[in-house]
Amino acid sequence: MNDRANIPAAAQAAALHVVGTRPVRPDGADKVTGRANFGADLRLPGMLTGRVKRSPHAHARILGIDIAAAAALPGVKAVVTAADFPALAAVAVEGGEGAATLRDVSSNCMARDKVLYVGHAVAAVAATSAAIAEAALALIEVRYEALPHVIEVEAAMAPGAPLLHEDLRTKGVTPAPEAASNVAEKIMLGRGDVAAAFVDPAQAEVVVEGRYVTAAVHQGYIEPHACVASAGADGQHQVWVSTQGQFMVRTLCAKLLGIAPSDIRVTPAEIGGGFGGKTTVYLEPVALALSRKCGRPVRMVMTRAEVFEASGPTSGAVAEVKLAARRDGRIVAAELVLKFQAGAFPGSPVGPACMTAFACYDIEHVAVTGYDVVSNRPKVAAYRAPGAPISAFAVESAMDELALKLGMDPIDLRLANAVKPGIKAVYGATFREIAFIDTLRAIQSHPHYRAPLPAGQGRGVACGFWFNAGGESSAAVHVDDDGGATVVSSSPDIGGSRASLAMMAAETLGLPIERVRAVVADTTAIGFSGLTGGSRVTFATGMAVVQAAQKVVDDLKRRAAATWDCSLEHVEWRDGQARCADPEKPQPPLGLKALAARSARTGGPIGAEASINAQGAGPGFAVHLCDVALDPETGRSTVVRYTAAQDVGRAIHPSYVEGQIQGGVAQGIGWALNEEYVYDAQGVQQNPGFLDYRMPVTSDLPMIDTILVETAPNSRHPYGAKGVGEAPIVPPLAAVANALSHAVGRRLAELPLSPPRVLDALDAARG
Amino acid sequence: MNDRANIPAAAQAAALHVVGTRPVRPDGADKVTGRANFGADLRLPGMLTGRVKRSPHAHARILGIDIAAAAALPGVKAVVTAADFPALAAVAVEGGEGAATLRDVSSNCMARDKVLYVGHAVAAVAATSAAIAEAALALIEVRYEALPHVIEVEAAMAPGAPLLHEDLRTKGVTPAPEAASNVAEKIMLGRGDVAAAFVDPAQAEVVVEGRYVTAAVHQGYIEPHACVASAGADGQHQVWVSTQGQFMVRTLCAKLLGIAPSDIRVTPAEIGGGFGGKTTVYLEPVALALSRKCGRPVRMVMTRAEVFEASGPTSGAVAEVKLAARRDGRIVAAELVLKFQAGAFPGSPVGPACMTAFACYDIEHVAVTGYDVVSNRPKVAAYRAPGAPISAFAVESAMDELALKLGMDPIDLRLANAVKPGIKAVYGATFREIAFIDTLRAIQSHPHYRAPLPAGQGRGVACGFWFNAGGESSAAVHVDDDGGATVVSSSPDIGGSRASLAMMAAETLGLPIERVRAVVADTTAIGFSGLTGGSRVTFATGMAVVQAAQKVVDDLKRRAAATWDCSLEHVEWRDGQARCADPEKPQPPLGLKALAARSARTGGPIGAEASINAQGAGPGFAVHLCDVALDPETGRSTVVRYTAAQDVGRAIHPSYVEGQIQGGVAQGIGWALNEEYVYDAQGVQQNPGFLDYRMPVTSDLPMIDTILVETAPNSRHPYGAKGVGEAPIVPPLAAVANALSHAVGRRLAELPLSPPRVLDALDAARG
Repeated sequence: MNDRANIPAAAQAAALHVVGTRPVRPDGADKVTGRANFGADLRLPGMLTGRVKRSPHAHARILGIDIAAAAALPGVKAVVTAADFPALAAVAVEGGEGAATLRDVSSNCMARDKVLYVGHAVAAVAATSAAIAEAALALIEVRYEALPHVIEVEAAMAPGAPLLHEDLRTKGVTPAPEAASNVAEKIMLGRGDVAAAFVDPAQAEVVVEGRYVTAAVHQGYIEPHACVASAGADGQHQVWVSTQGQFMVRTLCAKLLGIAPSDIRVTPAEIGGGFGGKTTVYLEPVALALSRKCGRPVRMVMTRAEVFEASGPTSGAVAEVKLAARRDGRIVAAELVLKFQAGAFPGSPVGPACMTAFACYDIEHVAVTGYDVVSNRPKVAAYRAPGAPISAFAVESAMDELALKLGMDPIDLRLANAVKPGIKAVYGATFREIAFIDTLRAIQSHPHYRAPLPAGQGRGVACGFWFNAGGESSAAVHVDDDGGATVVSSSPDIGGSRASLAMMAAETLGLPIERVRAVVADTTAIGFSGLTGGSRVTFATGMAVVQAAQKVVDDLKRRAAATWDCSLEHVEWRDGQARCADPEKPQPPLGLKALAARSARTGGPIGAEASINAQGAGPGFAVHLCDVALDPETGRSTVVRYTAAQDVGRAIHPSYVEGQIQGGVAQGIGWALNEEYVYDAQGVQQNPGFLDYRMPVTSDLPMIDTILVETAPNSRHPYGAKGVGEAPIVPPLAAVANALSHAVGRRLAELPLSPPRVLDALDAARG
Repeated sequence: MNDRANIPAAAQAAALHVVGTRPVRPDGADKVTGRANFGADLRLPGMLTGRVKRSPHAHARILGIDIAAAAALPGVKAVVTAADFPALAAVAVEGGEGAATLRDVSSNCMARDKVLYVGHAVAAVAATSAAIAEAALALIEVRYEALPHVIEVEAAMAPGAPLLHEDLRTKGVTPAPEAASNVAEKIMLGRGDVAAAFVDPAQAEVVVEGRYVTAAVHQGYIEPHACVASAGADGQHQVWVSTQGQFMVRTLCAKLLGIAPSDIRVTPAEIGGGFGGKTTVYLEPVALALSRKCGRPVRMVMTRAEVFEASGPTSGAVAEVKLAARRDGRIVAAELVLKFQAGAFPGSPVGPACMTAFACYDIEHVAVTGYDVVSNRPKVAAYRAPGAPISAFAVESAMDELALKLGMDPIDLRLANAVKPGIKAVYGATFREIAFIDTLRAIQSHPHYRAPLPAGQGRGVACGFWFNAGGESSAAVHVDDDGGATVVSSSPDIGGSRASLAMMAAETLGLPIERVRAVVADTTAIGFSGLTGGSRVTFATGMAVVQAAQKVVDDLKRRAAATWDCSLEHVEWRDGQARCADPEKPQPPLGLKALAARSARTGGPIGAEASINAQGAGPGFAVHLCDVALDPETGRSTVVRYTAAQDVGRAIHPSYVEGQIQGGVAQGIGWALNEEYVYDAQGVQQNPGFLDYRMPVTSDLPMIDTILVETAPNSRHPYGAKGVGEAPIVPPLAAVANALSHAVGRRLAELPLSPPRVLDALDAARG
């Protein structure tokens, strides 16, 4: 059951005709009938198949690559290695995720001197068939000098660990270290005097501490990485790709290959899931390099094993947390150390993990330390609220411990410390319209919270926070000659943004939603937008859409005024019609359709474009409640009931918001219970496929009930929207672990909570 | 040799850095390497092949169509007939060519009750292979009742002719006729008192008259009609098509199938020639209907025979002309009757033929009568300066006769009657900046005009006029993050408009042309533009581009002012840089690249869109001179030298303008010498292929020299552009015929001037 609780500003909401309703999703039919065209669905004349040769070693020096036999195989049209990519400086990637440098991105797409993980690309071929391409891969001879490798984060931090990058010095340490390290960066964040607070008996009346471990997990998007690249003889290039950001692909391909961005046209295909994992490039520059070499279009599609081994999961991590509170539940000090796997190159999401860790709570003394650590794993990529679920797992588990120790209701404990509008967060922002307290109360007052709990089940609560992002977006609104409208943006739709953008345009124009279509354009057709991520599209691109629609309304009013020969100030736009308020010149209303039909006579086609750098994304708070049933014989856990409340500002399309919440919870449950990268001693992933890498499917999950808390619409957005897609993955790790810990009777602190681990805990609990 | 004569306003032209230069064409490499993707080049998963069953009769009633056997053939997924298209009212097609009604367009795409020409579509199938589709066509049984047919225009006008449309009444006749007729419309145009002038001996000192006949000719674009249509299960549709107007395809498909235009996304493919012939729909609604029926994408491509038999050539016609002049060469009266084949449905270009006929000359008494006549031929479509070459053939042949009779130099005769700025044309407009006299003088003073003429050759002169069009266009200019720019329009590029649009944007922004790309977008990505035709794109879409670029410049100036904290009025934009003219605040200039790099901090992405209804297209005048060699044994004629001068306003990209002139001349020479539809007694075209329908190839033609007359830039356009693509096909029919008439020694008045006809004329001349 999905609820929409506490809708405020009822008068304002009542004035909305489209925003807040639940129209049929615009991409549903195409997706369920298989008609939608994804990254692998384009065919071009003369198109070749590209395949990548990958490293069998976790860590090795490349002594030489002989491509002669492969290049000579009939049907092979191009072979590339790192020699085909310009050497790049270690400069930061603008607009990219984390601390990646261009040199790192290039080396990750095609290994230059060393391979740093099993699956690292060392060469690629393009051939007239997949079979020939595979045969050619086998003919490429790579001579390696195997090196010692390191997989786990603390092992990589230890003195004497095998070094991945001889020139890597830890950033954020003073004085700058002379010796190379696998620690790419140390981050410190906080306020107050934590050390003093922890030893002040008047303050630190109760202390809890713990060490929490999470495994690396993959986003698990259904559609693997896929693209078609085509280099023209005149230096103009085309890429068709499954991505969260066509401009990101354009920028990175341009930099990695030394092409002007304007010479690359990137078209985003329909996307079969991204969740952050499609915010960088893997195949795209390789396919372009192959196409440039042979002058034919090249299609490349990863296998599922390649997706696991050579695209970016999120970090596995170790977190050490310590909380001090007064007996009344007021937390006085909090300390957190986070050690994050970055994979083979720097750039884990430890930064946002540090920033979000205590964002829910108003604590005087806070110290957070984060480490970004490379090891011989695939380079991590963004995954939904990057880093936040990991720190929340530690912090919210500790909060649960604290509530137990204090004998407090876990929601009451959080209410006693919850942030409110006007409070400055540890990460720097001062909160404006937030509804964390309403969200906590929505869970506390929900029937689920007081429902009897059968024997053998545990119940857990956890909270989560995500900033949500704004940034650069462009959009246009065009009125069709039949009075319908088209919304164009450059934001790929990964979670329903075509629906939300169309709805906001419809609301602004006064059109029924059926008359508005939203499309995602390629890099040439509309201005720049940052990539789809950070839960920014409905907020930021939505603002651009509303601005463009408002310009259209202004233009429509001008045209109506000219048609009536009345003063513009007397014209108002209401319910999709211009009305003349001049009592001297009464006029029947002029609707959009009528104005569109005569647009040629009033100045030409009707449309407008807006480009903005949106500020003021409202942060999101999530409070989750779950019941977990435990089979004590097998250690198998089942989530049997789940309720998720979230501060969503205003839900533009409530069904999509609920879907986002349900999807985030489902992924969080997988992360909590089953998902993990399993490595053997040689650093080879043992489970690179969906049979062995266990993601939850529908039959594993209960209905996930949602509560949309709309008491704090975002005043910086014309319709009150906040981002909603990321906060819901933040609490589930802790919520499930807290529930299961109660069922087991012992704190479970290492993910995934798979049956063997739960059985061990049960054994330990039984003494 | 190509000349650019008489460039005026030298100071202004000197200030231009890009306009007037000859950068490399943007689509050249893709086209010569075969990488460009045309209408047939898209492949979609599950795509079917569509084929059309066509009428073997020139005129017949459809008694019944049995599709059962075809539908049952394994591999056949859909069969459609007229029953799958809604019956439509006979309302005019907005923005379409000529007098076509929606009912006519629908019936032309799929015959409803009668077939009206051999090749008329009666059914279509979509199947998993072309072979199955062909087999299915053979299984469709159509029962016909054959009817008498009529092919030629005067036979169709004659009393008792077989009637194509029982409900067709001649428009433009008072009182409205009661009886049905094949004459769809009678047009009358003129001024003064022609009848009186012709019988006034003081005025009509010399009179010439003649009857001129032209054959139906086809545009002969290399790429046949081709499209891919895909109907989604949710009522949203996609069409990928070779067309001159994606919005035209959208509108017509929407109306013909009862779909909202917003529910159809039309993407224009690269186009392999159109010349007016791709300004309506043939396959597109059929492919959509098939796709709607089976839920799979359907690709349809015409064979060359289908292009000839079932797409639109231009009219064959009969023209009767009469001129009266004083002995000094001043023409006092002119009369013209035009009888135009419309093909099976009303809508020949007789209207523009009437309007342009005497537009070059300032004549007091003029009477033009035009007849639009249906007969059992494929419905005509637009062909480059529709109708004008036909009336010019008659008028300019008569002018040649008159010059002979007066003993005047043919250019002097035209100079004595040439229109000048300020004169009101017969068709209604008052000329502004025109350079017809300069264009005549450019030919008269050209070495070719006085070059000795070898024995056996004739030399001809003729003039031509085309209005050129403006109208609705939309465009956007976006600045890329590297300081390059992209120009987006919805005008398909059939003659170099990507180059001209990019150049005008580069000029306005102050960028080198290499940093500007122009793309043609689909119907969703940018606002409406009328179709590419009427020589309107560089003028009208160009104005939209310049407006959008100017908005970008204004925005850049605002951002520079904000960066410098200086007053906007002190900021000027010059050579791609903002400069601060405030002596109090000296600043180094800020270039586009620097402003683009910091755009996120100054308001977001940089771009703007403009939609206009452009007025003030400057008309074009062409004066052509040609030498034709005649082989008296075989009757074969060869154009050995050709010089074409044209009033082009200002040439944005002179090489493209020269190419347009050369292309128009080449097509005009084919029309004059060889091209024609040949029918047998059953109304079956005997030459529906390039082996038997003889178009000129390179080896048939001399170098066509051009003179760009730029003495009258169009003040209504920011860079002085006029349309240039159509005027050059107007004079060649008469220029070649005049030259050959002089070589033969007898007036040649019936096209094509093929060897048998020339031999007949030689025989007649020899007595």
